[in-house]
Amino acid sequence: MIEVALFGAGRIGAIHAGNIARQPGVRLKYVVDVDAAAATKLAQSHGAQTTDAAHVFDDTAVRAVAIGSSTDTHADLITRAAKAGKAIFCEKPVDLDLQRARTCADAVRAAGVTCLIGFQRRYDPTFASVKARIARGDIGRPEMLIVTSRDPGAPPVDYIKRSGGIYKDMLIHDFDVFRWIMEDEAATVYATGSCLVDPAIEAAGDVDATAVTIRTRDGRLAQINTIRRAAYGYDQRFEVLGSKGMLQAGNHRPTEALLWSTDAVAADKPEYFFLERYRAAYAAEMAHFFDVVAGRAAAVTSIDDGVKALALAEAATTSWREKRIVEL
Amino acid sequence: MIEVALFGAGRIGAIHAGNIARQPGVRLKYVVDVDAAAATKLAQSHGAQTTDAAHVFDDTAVRAVAIGSSTDTHADLITRAAKAGKAIFCEKPVDLDLQRARTCADAVRAAGVTCLIGFQRRYDPTFASVKARIARGDIGRPEMLIVTSRDPGAPPVDYIKRSGGIYKDMLIHDFDVFRWIMEDEAATVYATGSCLVDPAIEAAGDVDATAVTIRTRDGRLAQINTIRRAAYGYDQRFEVLGSKGMLQAGNHRPTEALLWSTDAVAADKPEYFFLERYRAAYAAEMAHFFDVVAGRAAAVTSIDDGVKALALAEAATTSWREKRIVEL
Amino acid sequence: MIEVALFGAGRIGAIHAGNIARQPGVRLKYVVDVDAAAATKLAQSHGAQTTDAAHVFDDTAVRAVAIGSSTDTHADLITRAAKAGKAIFCEKPVDLDLQRARTCADAVRAAGVTCLIGFQRRYDPTFASVKARIARGDIGRPEMLIVTSRDPGAPPVDYIKRSGGIYKDMLIHDFDVFRWIMEDEAATVYATGSCLVDPAIEAAGDVDATAVTIRTRDGRLAQINTIRRAAYGYDQRFEVLGSKGMLQAGNHRPTEALLWSTDAVAADKPEYFFLERYRAAYAAEMAHFFDVVAGRAAAVTSIDDGVKALALAEAATTSWREKRIVEL
Amino acid sequence: MIEVALFGAGRIGAIHAGNIARQPGVRLKYVVDVDAAAATKLAQSHGAQTTDAAHVFDDTAVRAVAIGSSTDTHADLITRAAKAGKAIFCEKPVDLDLQRARTCADAVRAAGVTCLIGFQRRYDPTFASVKARIARGDIGRPEMLIVTSRDPGAPPVDYIKRSGGIYKDMLIHDFDVFRWIMEDEAATVYATGSCLVDPAIEAAGDVDATAVTIRTRDGRLAQINTIRRAAYGYDQRFEVLGSKGMLQAGNHRPTEALLWSTDAVAADKPEYFFLERYRAAYAAEMAHFFDVVAGRAAAVTSIDDGVKALALAEAATTSWREKRIVEL
Repeated sequence: MIEVALFGAGRIGAIHAGNIARQPGVRLKYVVDVDAAAATKLAQSHGAQTTDAAHVFDDTAVRAVAIGSSTDTHADLITRAAKAGKAIFCEKPVDLDLQRARTCADAVRAAGVTCLIGFQRRYDPTFASVKARIARGDIGRPEMLIVTSRDPGAPPVDYIKRSGGIYKDMLIHDFDVFRWIMEDEAATVYATGSCLVDPAIEAAGDVDATAVTIRTRDGRLAQINTIRRAAYGYDQRFEVLGSKGMLQAGNHRPTEALLWSTDAVAADKPEYFFLERYRAAYAAEMAHFFDVVAGRAAAVTSIDDGVKALALAEAATTSWREKRIVEL
Repeated sequence: MIEVALFGAGRIGAIHAGNIARQPGVRLKYVVDVDAAAATKLAQSHGAQTTDAAHVFDDTAVRAVAIGSSTDTHADLITRAAKAGKAIFCEKPVDLDLQRARTCADAVRAAGVTCLIGFQRRYDPTFASVKARIARGDIGRPEMLIVTSRDPGAPPVDYIKRSGGIYKDMLIHDFDVFRWIMEDEAATVYATGSCLVDPAIEAAGDVDATAVTIRTRDGRLAQINTIRRAAYGYDQRFEVLGSKGMLQAGNHRPTEALLWSTDAVAADKPEYFFLERYRAAYAAEMAHFFDVVAGRAAAVTSIDDGVKALALAEAATTSWREKRIVEL
Repeated sequence: MIEVALFGAGRIGAIHAGNIARQPGVRLKYVVDVDAAAATKLAQSHGAQTTDAAHVFDDTAVRAVAIGSSTDTHADLITRAAKAGKAIFCEKPVDLDLQRARTCADAVRAAGVTCLIGFQRRYDPTFASVKARIARGDIGRPEMLIVTSRDPGAPPVDYIKRSGGIYKDMLIHDFDVFRWIMEDEAATVYATGSCLVDPAIEAAGDVDATAVTIRTRDGRLAQINTIRRAAYGYDQRFEVLGSKGMLQAGNHRPTEALLWSTDAVAADKPEYFFLERYRAAYAAEMAHFFDVVAGRAAAVTSIDDGVKALALAEAATTSWREKRIVEL
Repeated sequence: MIEVALFGAGRIGAIHAGNIARQPGVRLKYVVDVDAAAATKLAQSHGAQTTDAAHVFDDTAVRAVAIGSSTDTHADLITRAAKAGKAIFCEKPVDLDLQRARTCADAVRAAGVTCLIGFQRRYDPTFASVKARIARGDIGRPEMLIVTSRDPGAPPVDYIKRSGGIYKDMLIHDFDVFRWIMEDEAATVYATGSCLVDPAIEAAGDVDATAVTIRTRDGRLAQINTIRRAAYGYDQRFEVLGSKGMLQAGNHRPTEALLWSTDAVAADKPEYFFLERYRAAYAAEMAHFFDVVAGRAAAVTSIDDGVKALALAEAATTSWREKRIVEL
């Protein structure tokens, strides 16, 4: 039985708790959160206890930790967990500061522990199928990548202020998709952004819409378009053009009902937001984490993936702020 | 130059006139219609003359006739054209009376002339593609056929009264599709009908909705569903299940625009009605007719196809009226 | 805490066990199966015990039973559970014999217990959405129903022999869909069947393909087409034409990936078979059952629905065997 | 009767000749081409004569000219036609040299004649429908535009060398789509390009794949991705995200047949290339031209649109060559 501690009893923490509970051979032992009431409620619903971080790292029976607490706690918890020799699953980003993230990655490497960063899109059935088909050679060599990544609505400005900006908050996922699909690193990044949704976001020093172009070291091309508000919901698509064809990863819909009316033939809008769209991805991600912990699989991501996506986000932020093409 | 006479200057006559005018090496010489004004207008717009039927059949320079006049004139015009040795294109049905249609077919056979009956669906790009892929073996042996054939709205009751009933007026096309796709004849027909759209149609002794089942001589199965009113427009689909797969022939849409709104993801409704949906089919049909007349192609349909579809329509009518399974 | 006993530790029993285990406030107490090894394995994986039927019915702590054992045990287990005052969930059919099913329904009614028959399609997200939109008035009054219901492959002939025939085994689900969607009963049923897939099925006195037409008491029309083998997988669709529009319930696909190649633009085939396609439906069905047991919801189906679908299956069987239209 | 002269008897000239012939009240009088045989053949098939440019401009009966000859002849023919007071339709581009194009535009303005530049995509049924729905307010204010524009295969390098480069040859259409849909001008353009298809194109000093980002003067964003080879054919799509929704303009397919096989559910690939995809657009464009000539409609494009799209192409070329963001 693998015993696990979960940091964070919020919305994403609850998702992870449920997925941990469903893993055979795994037991959720602790839930840790500064919000004691939330921690207690989540712990009780899964037969776990609440405790604090120090206790978790001292408990040698805990083999793995899942970190879904606020971003500013990630690097510290990862570092302490690594030193305590525990396998780590942590939500993105490692940290908003690239240097701190690199230091944290050094600690993980030094400890030699597993550290999976929560790029859940890699486990989405549709996205993973596209990746597998590329690997199988269905489209030849990937040459161009077009990513569409739009939220249904903008969060409160308070969230924006703590988010690290649109590139570290939203596009970090898309930068990981880019690295995962193209299997290459960026040579140059160009980002231009605008505030099209909420002027308060501009006042907070951020943008809510952006167009990013990445050129890989071997000259292949990627474009990402992102906005914090799409009236029709959460829009998560990408397409990869290869030398022999194209693969498109489309949105998921709640149902396959079609209404033929006097107006149109209407299908469902996409799944509402990330908790719905990536429900299966979060489950598969956690299953993968415990496969790695149990020695049944090699980790598909490492903390380096977290650092490299963050480096891209930082480069994009610079490109947007300084209105220039950034070389990496 | 092949000289042609057209009977009928109404809606379908105008379509045929335009398509005849577009054939290279073909000249529309005459337009004949009891409505002299309509005949004159259509003739003038294509540089043709108006005349009467007798004159057409006497003019040995006329090699082909296209008959798009009212149903009650078809058998007589076909018979006279056949005796005059002219190639014949005629709209369905040959006649509303099966015996008269058979006599007419005898006359055509005796004369040895081409007589194409206007089952334009065979020339529709989508339907023809399905047929070609079946012939190529894409789905193995066709085993089940499901035909959906719905009009956007019911015609005036006056039309209904002269129409021969829903089976001879609407389903005759579907019966031809059945014979064309399954390449077999019906062993039994079962039809049940209802008046769901307009009570005046029931008062006229007809139904406006029907479900038909055909069993072929070798035990394969077909179902047809038809109604005179689909709120979303003209619905023309069929699907063929074969031993190795299925082919679906879908509706055509005016555009490939998609609207993603707060309500739904909405595509266009189907093309409005037969003149829009089968525009390409009518053109291809007429091109085929003149390929046959010019000796460049063998006719894909004969008057026998018209008679056999009519026999199915008659059997279905009997099944509906007498509430019994009809054997053929 | 609602304590539950599960009858049947086979493929569908395992699905139900998992879904029972996921219900909050519900505990799987017993697993009963003539195959002791299977019962033990399933019980252990959910922390339950194995026992026999008599013990279940004697244990007053057991408030509900879920019956997923072989068809020939259903009526007896339902009757005994009803007498013991337990809430009942039972897989379809109630029994292969209509009279026995009716007697069983009488016992349930006399006992006044909940008895949900496992028509899981009613809980499928797509099917349920179509039902809800009809109720909301999106298409006006439902007038025509077309059901496509095809299995990916035929079962062994041994299964066929015990199945009660294609109408009681496969189409009973479609008959329930008909009653649920049209909210009316059949006035007449016509069924014609063929053996198109496996001659051994014909030798066993059954057919493997059928076309069924149902006319409701108020003259609305339904067609069902079914076959035991579709090369492309499990095909589960229906469409309802109403006075104001049409709703289509389509297949579910494993992913939303599209491959654009030199050949075609290719989407996934449908989910492989019922365990995949109706995975969400089975979960929602069991959640509904416990909502009913806990008094949070009224049952959407009763044993009468099981009996009425069976009566339709029997009428269809008679129609097929006797080559006649059957009146109900 | 409007008499017309056509310059250019090549592939696109033949399309225009056919469309001119189909306009009511219009007569194709002359065909002019340096290839006398091609001119004669095209002229004869439409009952026109061959002649030279001087004769066309001297013939006061000629009210309109259609220019589909090689790019290097456009500016001269436009200028002479303008001076002769004739209405002008000309294929894109006005000229490969921006200054020459501007001088030519001055001549047109001075003459006060109609000069429609052949941006046929504006007349495509799908693209035009998207434009109309934006105008109707279906998606609120357009904020982001994503254009996918891919050719099925690269042309010979000889063509590339005369083409003016990918931005003036291919993307000029996409730049016009950008201006047409966003109804704003570019503030900055960023283009990065690669040679991914054919090294000979690189040797010729051009690229065959590019990613372009345009920022409008009011901060809205557009991305264009283009390549000279898509294995699955001609890919012509765009999508516009607005404040209230999104409109997508999709590819057109030859048929609406779907093959459900053991592998996949496969639809047709897109129409093969521009002559197929834009067949309806070319017809509608010519009809619009003669509506303008006859005074029945105001021109939807002017020579200024040709000049402005060319200016964008020049800016993109500079951005690509000099690896910098270009301000306009």
